[in-house]
Amino acid sequence: MDFYSFFNSSTSYRVRIALALKGIEPIFHGVNIRLGEHRDAHYVATVNPSAVVPAVVDGNFHLGQSLAIIDWLDGTYPEPRLIPAEPVLRARVLEFSNLIACDIHPVNNLRVLKYLTDVLKATSDQKDAWYKHWIAEGLCAAERLLEQAAAREGGPWCFGGAPTLADVCLVPQVANALRMGCDLSAYSRVMAAYRHASGHPSFVKAEPKNQPDYVA
Amino acid sequence: MDFYSFFNSSTSYRVRIALALKGIEPIFHGVNIRLGEHRDAHYVATVNPSAVVPAVVDGNFHLGQSLAIIDWLDGTYPEPRLIPAEPVLRARVLEFSNLIACDIHPVNNLRVLKYLTDVLKATSDQKDAWYKHWIAEGLCAAERLLEQAAAREGGPWCFGGAPTLADVCLVPQVANALRMGCDLSAYSRVMAAYRHASGHPSFVKAEPKNQPDYVA
Repeated sequence: MDFYSFFNSSTSYRVRIALALKGIEPIFHGVNIRLGEHRDAHYVATVNPSAVVPAVVDGNFHLGQSLAIIDWLDGTYPEPRLIPAEPVLRARVLEFSNLIACDIHPVNNLRVLKYLTDVLKATSDQKDAWYKHWIAEGLCAAERLLEQAAAREGGPWCFGGAPTLADVCLVPQVANALRMGCDLSAYSRVMAAYRHASGHPSFVKAEPKNQPDYVA
Repeated sequence: MDFYSFFNSSTSYRVRIALALKGIEPIFHGVNIRLGEHRDAHYVATVNPSAVVPAVVDGNFHLGQSLAIIDWLDGTYPEPRLIPAEPVLRARVLEFSNLIACDIHPVNNLRVLKYLTDVLKATSDQKDAWYKHWIAEGLCAAERLLEQAAAREGGPWCFGGAPTLADVCLVPQVANALRMGCDLSAYSRVMAAYRHASGHPSFVKAEPKNQPDYVA
């Protein structure tokens, strides 16, 4: 399997965690989205028609979108399972993961922040306030979901005693927010889950600074 | 089952289509997000801790996030199945659905457009240009995925001979873009899939104008 990733992309980071948890060692390809390599004609034609990272290619099969890739990995390499089979736990894990993947991450994506500054001429302070606004709104919801999970499923992971897609989505999002200087002290459940998960060897292996394409 | 929806919410619209396709008739509750009813303390405490629509409540079980709800409906009411079981088709349907749910819809959501005008003081023209920019970028990728699907799975639906989550996500997104005055003539596959799906009785039933809480 070939894997296309950018060290600083949160969605690539999710897939890297899933690959590491499952012990899969794909052929790694760094795609520098700062240099626009994801828009290269050959990449779009043969790897990802959506012109984004991450993507996987396995023979004739190519696939983009981090959550679709992780669902596919779960079907192909089921151990450990990251999207639970039990219906209620599955629903809660998908709800939490989609909160991050649909409601928090996209609005603070690199391309959106670039549009704010390049086209709308937002100042650096306005861009920071935008970022922090969506983090606060999103993590406030995440905190409430994790409070209920702690009472029901327990810890130390987001939903009980094993890592799931929820942790896979949470860690890159929190790491990103910390890097952007957000004060996350109000989100104690979020931060407890983050601290637990981010210390796990598979999560450490997937960190931006541990990637072959890392640039300081 | 209780269902919480706002007629003009694209994510509520997705769930309404899924419910109609499966022939489920939940108890309907309109939540007027223009009036902030999704932030009501009782709603947040008992229906959706994330303070958004849509949500479903079934006994003690409550669930938000449209894609998590549809996955749960697919497990609980499997006919017709909207997320295919066959791994490759499943992966393609989830990739396409996540393209819409993560890359297109969130950036043009009501709350984001409101922030642009209310906080960043974007003009009406700047807001329109923002909306059209993300529609163009996203539907360009959607068109390429559907070109490959047409060659592989055929039609008349997005992915072959039956409706899937892909159609469920596509129709509200295209309807929204048309309402915002986007020129979509460049996306012939997208529009062919939209025209086919939007004429189906379950998709018609789910339209904003056919909801009990509709306001012209």
